[in-house]
Amino acid sequence: MSNNIYTIADYLFERVAEAGATEVFGVPGDYNLLFLDNIIASDKLRWVGNTNELNAGYAADGYARERGFAAMVTTFGVGELSAINATAGSYAEFAPVLHITGAPKTKLQDRKLVLHHSLGEGIFDNFAKMAESVTVAQAIITPENAAAQIDNVITQIVKKQRPGYLCLPADVSQMPIYPPSTKLDLQRDNNTSEQALSDFKQALAKFIDGKQTTLLADIKVKSLGLKQALNALVADTKIPYATLSWGKSLLNEQDERWAGVYYAKVSNPIVKDAVENAECLIQVGVTFTDTTSSGFSQQIDQSRTVEISENNSMVGDKLFAPISMKDGLQALHEVLTSGINVIPKPLKGEREVYEQQAADDAPLIQQDLWHIVADNLTENSLVFAEQGTSYNGMGPIALPDGVTFHGQPLWGSIGYTLPASLGAGIASPNKRTILLIGDGSTLLTIQDIAVMLREKLNPVILLINNSGYTIERAIHGENEIYNDIPKIDWQSVPHTFGATEDTCVVLKAKTAGELKSAIATAKDTPNKMVFLEVVTAVMDIPPVLAKQAALF
Amino acid sequence: MSNNIYTIADYLFERVAEAGATEVFGVPGDYNLLFLDNIIASDKLRWVGNTNELNAGYAADGYARERGFAAMVTTFGVGELSAINATAGSYAEFAPVLHITGAPKTKLQDRKLVLHHSLGEGIFDNFAKMAESVTVAQAIITPENAAAQIDNVITQIVKKQRPGYLCLPADVSQMPIYPPSTKLDLQRDNNTSEQALSDFKQALAKFIDGKQTTLLADIKVKSLGLKQALNALVADTKIPYATLSWGKSLLNEQDERWAGVYYAKVSNPIVKDAVENAECLIQVGVTFTDTTSSGFSQQIDQSRTVEISENNSMVGDKLFAPISMKDGLQALHEVLTSGINVIPKPLKGEREVYEQQAADDAPLIQQDLWHIVADNLTENSLVFAEQGTSYNGMGPIALPDGVTFHGQPLWGSIGYTLPASLGAGIASPNKRTILLIGDGSTLLTIQDIAVMLREKLNPVILLINNSGYTIERAIHGENEIYNDIPKIDWQSVPHTFGATEDTCVVLKAKTAGELKSAIATAKDTPNKMVFLEVVTAVMDIPPVLAKQAALF
Repeated sequence: MSNNIYTIADYLFERVAEAGATEVFGVPGDYNLLFLDNIIASDKLRWVGNTNELNAGYAADGYARERGFAAMVTTFGVGELSAINATAGSYAEFAPVLHITGAPKTKLQDRKLVLHHSLGEGIFDNFAKMAESVTVAQAIITPENAAAQIDNVITQIVKKQRPGYLCLPADVSQMPIYPPSTKLDLQRDNNTSEQALSDFKQALAKFIDGKQTTLLADIKVKSLGLKQALNALVADTKIPYATLSWGKSLLNEQDERWAGVYYAKVSNPIVKDAVENAECLIQVGVTFTDTTSSGFSQQIDQSRTVEISENNSMVGDKLFAPISMKDGLQALHEVLTSGINVIPKPLKGEREVYEQQAADDAPLIQQDLWHIVADNLTENSLVFAEQGTSYNGMGPIALPDGVTFHGQPLWGSIGYTLPASLGAGIASPNKRTILLIGDGSTLLTIQDIAVMLREKLNPVILLINNSGYTIERAIHGENEIYNDIPKIDWQSVPHTFGATEDTCVVLKAKTAGELKSAIATAKDTPNKMVFLEVVTAVMDIPPVLAKQAALF
Repeated sequence: MSNNIYTIADYLFERVAEAGATEVFGVPGDYNLLFLDNIIASDKLRWVGNTNELNAGYAADGYARERGFAAMVTTFGVGELSAINATAGSYAEFAPVLHITGAPKTKLQDRKLVLHHSLGEGIFDNFAKMAESVTVAQAIITPENAAAQIDNVITQIVKKQRPGYLCLPADVSQMPIYPPSTKLDLQRDNNTSEQALSDFKQALAKFIDGKQTTLLADIKVKSLGLKQALNALVADTKIPYATLSWGKSLLNEQDERWAGVYYAKVSNPIVKDAVENAECLIQVGVTFTDTTSSGFSQQIDQSRTVEISENNSMVGDKLFAPISMKDGLQALHEVLTSGINVIPKPLKGEREVYEQQAADDAPLIQQDLWHIVADNLTENSLVFAEQGTSYNGMGPIALPDGVTFHGQPLWGSIGYTLPASLGAGIASPNKRTILLIGDGSTLLTIQDIAVMLREKLNPVILLINNSGYTIERAIHGENEIYNDIPKIDWQSVPHTFGATEDTCVVLKAKTAGELKSAIATAKDTPNKMVFLEVVTAVMDIPPVLAKQAALF
């Protein structure tokens, strides 16, 4: 409470804290200043100001991925629209973010006045309407609907793991209300028909029995909070497993049963065979997107698959619904451990053993770069890989168990990972952020480096300086000026954005040897930002990307 | 043509050039790369890549304000949504910008595939729908509708001086079409009833005759292209005149008949009296917004006003419609010069004569800052004043005749002026850009300084370093952390973003003397960027802002 009256803003932020946030991201504006005071006054929340609203939205997305809920505040019109791309990304990629936007006082809206941050036409619900297609729940808060709508929007966000939107007029935010008397019901809906489940288990047991089986998992397992359940299942069975890149870091990639990351046509042979030639392929939470499936080139015969999806399960082409993924996964676990004859599909072919390609004193190449980085990750590494050479470079490499890996392969908004890693770093202070990002992408959202420094975060930023939009060059226009970016002095970036010797170490690596040395320094500098410019050639791209480019 | 086939993209860009653009702004993405080649191949257009899409949108807005038309290209979803705040601003503030966005190939859309940059739900028109409320015309281009929709959207943009939107699937862009056979009809609609006009003139003559008269003009005169017509009218009469700040630089502010910029309740006495106490106040294209009217505090008795608006004219409370502003203004001109007894309202009170308040070697204060800058503007100055202390500081000061002055008082999106001034500078290479912007605002869009440098532009950037969001502090939360910004080393900003001694001079001024000296250097350095950090105290605000803050 900011002045002894319990207000609608207090109610809102109490619910924000209850949903799991301890920080709120955003940018001030005169329509939200009044209720920013309620955040300042809260003993449960801390304000983290970003440098612009898109960055705030990305930061909230990263925070939500780690924490399970995030909140951000923008101002009317200008602020909320600047952030809407981030919100759309949170929708596409299942990040539970509450976007709160300030708005003019209700009585001014009612008079249809030409107010700043509006289009000047006396209409004040048009931006809320734009939010509808990128959020799962929305409301314009009034004194009458406040408690119900705040509770509903936050509940929907958590249950569906997607963003929601609340528009809060400045005056309404300061109106009195009583504190919540009940806790929010944040349990996911679990709509399962007992009969469907029973029929599914029976069909499943019959189907799997005696078949060489592989498991393929993906993003939905993460977004529905079932990573632990999936790992328990894997631990209790002997079948080999793989993920798509969107599901990377769901499962232990160091185990001998790890087949690899499945990239459809351009997969390594071992994982391609394990997935495509299994007599039974169990798919859990799998979504094939164009980028993760190399243009939908997967060769998977539905008649040989079992699918556990968000709201149903399938055996071959037979659908069992409704079954929640949680129950479908539990049923699968029970059937696989029921004593039926589950035959692990043997992994065929030699695992690729990485050998450094270029000498330590030769120019660094991407074939070495990602392996050297991967070798130095640990279980507390919080990796964000930008949708470019970074995501495609790190994707196929087996990471140490426990590493957290985030990318944005569906929405793919360049510049996303810089603020997202900032938000995630704040959400998970016990992990160390490793940001893998190119020069072109960094430039879009560069100013939030100043926020990382102000927040005294300790990320290792590997800025891949390859002189422009290399991933675009690989697709089209290799030498066209539209794939160039302006010249930036990367070495001076941290200093410009507030770094001092006490808060940041700036390094540069042009060879494998320099990269190893820089990484060693980063390990020896656990409490500072390490800004490491890594120089690679303009058209040097990781193998997966090269194969995909050749495919199209 | 990029490969000897005349394509839909060629048609589009031919129309873009015909509408007046010689540059196209934007950011590449794989859904637009194919048709960026058509820009590269065009001998009428040049590609100007920005560092992110919001900046591209702002740059296009500034270009449109100078050139009368601008085009920008983004990619599907991620790119277009990042730019939508800029488009909304162009809508609110009458900037004719065509927003072209790339999209997935039609056959992939038809299959409802989970494509990158989509929400993953097989829906591909949701972002186009979001553009509807911030544009005057929109289309998703198909081979069938291409010529008609391209022509229609561009025509509507120019006629209505507001943005439009075209979604161009990558495959459609490369399909053949024939070149246009006719020119676009870009003439503004001029819907005037001869009878209404005749009745209006009669009522007008009777109304004005014998009355002490003042003229008040505003933004709509600019956006409807009637600046010259208004100036011709003013030249042929003897009545005093004023503008609102949104209409600043419409009329000669050095003339003895210049009453000043009208800020309603907080106006200087001379302009307040001229406007509010005129027996007849002629309003041309006036829109009172909360920020330009100090919270709608204007004291104007409608029974004493004549109003020339976009589609009608009024005498007192009597409406004459339809009358276009062009015809209404012409009618006004004729009546005022018809020999009736038009009495110029005498300007009452002494003009404020500026005297420097703080000594040359004392800390610089905003009361001096804006006058010192104004005194050094010339007729080729292209001023962009950010909606903060800059806009409010420069607004009331009489500028040299011929200065172009742009701000964004209605939409008020902070950070706007930096890329907007970049775009305007490209549109008007014979003017010199003077960018007046605070530290907080600069941080939102700072990366486009790299584009200014790459484009070898010569702006004078006055970066007002007052340690945070001072305009927000003036409204609420003077000492709250949410009005702080991270620490930035402003002196190193140009170098980081690519400046060399050949392209940029970096200066700093903490006193009036240092400011004068720096401005002298800027004048002596006409071909480089001059980046001038001007330090003022945290809570030092210009007089108009202080008065407005006291009012609320």
